[in-house]
Amino acid sequence: MMRRSLQVAARLGHRRALLRTPCILPGLDPAAAFGSSTDSLVSRFCPEKTDLKDYALPNASWSPDMLSLYQEFLEKTKSDGWVKLPSFQSNRDHIQGLKLPSGLVAASDKSDWRIFTRCIQVEGQGYEYVIFFHPCKKKSVCLFQPGPYLEGPPGFAHGGSLAAMMDETFSKTAYLAGEGLFTLNLNIRFKNLIPVGSLAVLNVQVEKIEDQKLYMSCIAQSRDQETVYAKSSGVFLQWQLEEESSPESL
Amino acid sequence: MMRRSLQVAARLGHRRALLRTPCILPGLDPAAAFGSSTDSLVSRFCPEKTDLKDYALPNASWSPDMLSLYQEFLEKTKSDGWVKLPSFQSNRDHIQGLKLPSGLVAASDKSDWRIFTRCIQVEGQGYEYVIFFHPCKKKSVCLFQPGPYLEGPPGFAHGGSLAAMMDETFSKTAYLAGEGLFTLNLNIRFKNLIPVGSLAVLNVQVEKIEDQKLYMSCIAQSRDQETVYAKSSGVFLQWQLEEESSPESL
Repeated sequence: MMRRSLQVAARLGHRRALLRTPCILPGLDPAAAFGSSTDSLVSRFCPEKTDLKDYALPNASWSPDMLSLYQEFLEKTKSDGWVKLPSFQSNRDHIQGLKLPSGLVAASDKSDWRIFTRCIQVEGQGYEYVIFFHPCKKKSVCLFQPGPYLEGPPGFAHGGSLAAMMDETFSKTAYLAGEGLFTLNLNIRFKNLIPVGSLAVLNVQVEKIEDQKLYMSCIAQSRDQETVYAKSSGVFLQWQLEEESSPESL
Repeated sequence: MMRRSLQVAARLGHRRALLRTPCILPGLDPAAAFGSSTDSLVSRFCPEKTDLKDYALPNASWSPDMLSLYQEFLEKTKSDGWVKLPSFQSNRDHIQGLKLPSGLVAASDKSDWRIFTRCIQVEGQGYEYVIFFHPCKKKSVCLFQPGPYLEGPPGFAHGGSLAAMMDETFSKTAYLAGEGLFTLNLNIRFKNLIPVGSLAVLNVQVEKIEDQKLYMSCIAQSRDQETVYAKSSGVFLQWQLEEESSPESL
């Protein structure tokens, strides 16, 4: 795995040098079209039938606050256009059947890859979260309950754990709203600490899409909106994933 | 735990309202003095004898690159003024005998608290890192090797995992360089993806200390400096921790 990873790194470095501009990915084609509609992205992202475990479902560790707000949004999926996003163990599961950009060859000799925000699988100890997305309004709401393994200052969530939760919510929103695939910029202003075990509600909004970039904002606050935990902005690079040529080989 | 945490949150919200200014902590006293020297902070932070497990020591998962750079810096601790920082399971261990600011009463009815960047204890699967600090130069170097539980795009570290690593390196640097305790701002520009299993070297520098704030910069790159993974800046709030009145009760 190490060798493959380093080869990827070397390849990235080489192509970057050829382009003579700093970029997160090799071979950026500014003329690339972003033809997939949000509806088709959402319907691919939320398979009706799957054997994959969805980690964004209530469990015994969810606080009453988290559970009741989850139920509230679940009601809104029936009539108000909101979509509950599934959350699988790895982004590999989310992009099944799609090809990564050339130069980004994913190492595959590990059996247990986990998306960072699902790294801890003991209920209630790490990340508990669920994201709802609104395709028309291009906004998301993430219900986030940090567990004791996400500690920073004693009794409170680590600033980095909130940063990662924001990045992940931005990431899923950017992908579904406009094929945003890679974080370019993340700017966070922290206001108050989140007590471990309590609920933080992240409201993400796509502000604009320009020059192959999605610009988003986020505010994380208590459910009653009395306490603002942090505000942030994020910029993501658009990148259209193509269908694998041999989907039957998956 | 839930009730206590929510009480803390309520208290924070209430005091914040009284102050009528957004702040991360209640009762900020601008006249507070920051009298502890970096040397005394470092010597308290790095106890010569302790029963606590230090997670910042080599293990079988460390790549040859990580291991050899670790040895290089270890040599520099003997003659060049660098200090290897220990990394315990929780910040509670790091601030033993010190009192948190009023209003921040740490919940304590969980036995297994973990600092976020040590949340995964299976060697090589999550965060592998070690921080070296230079008290005179007020700079740090963090050797960071992300494992497969830190994945974002298939085969690469999640942007949020690097954000958290930067925040944690900023945090330890800010505390030792000038009693910086809480992240106020974190701004990250991502340039290239870090392949899982490879080494990223984070160089953190304290740029200035002004108005009770520490301003820091960070660059994360490959060991050969050919590939820049990300650049960031961080602002931390200074806060002097006091000795517990009854240290024998700890």
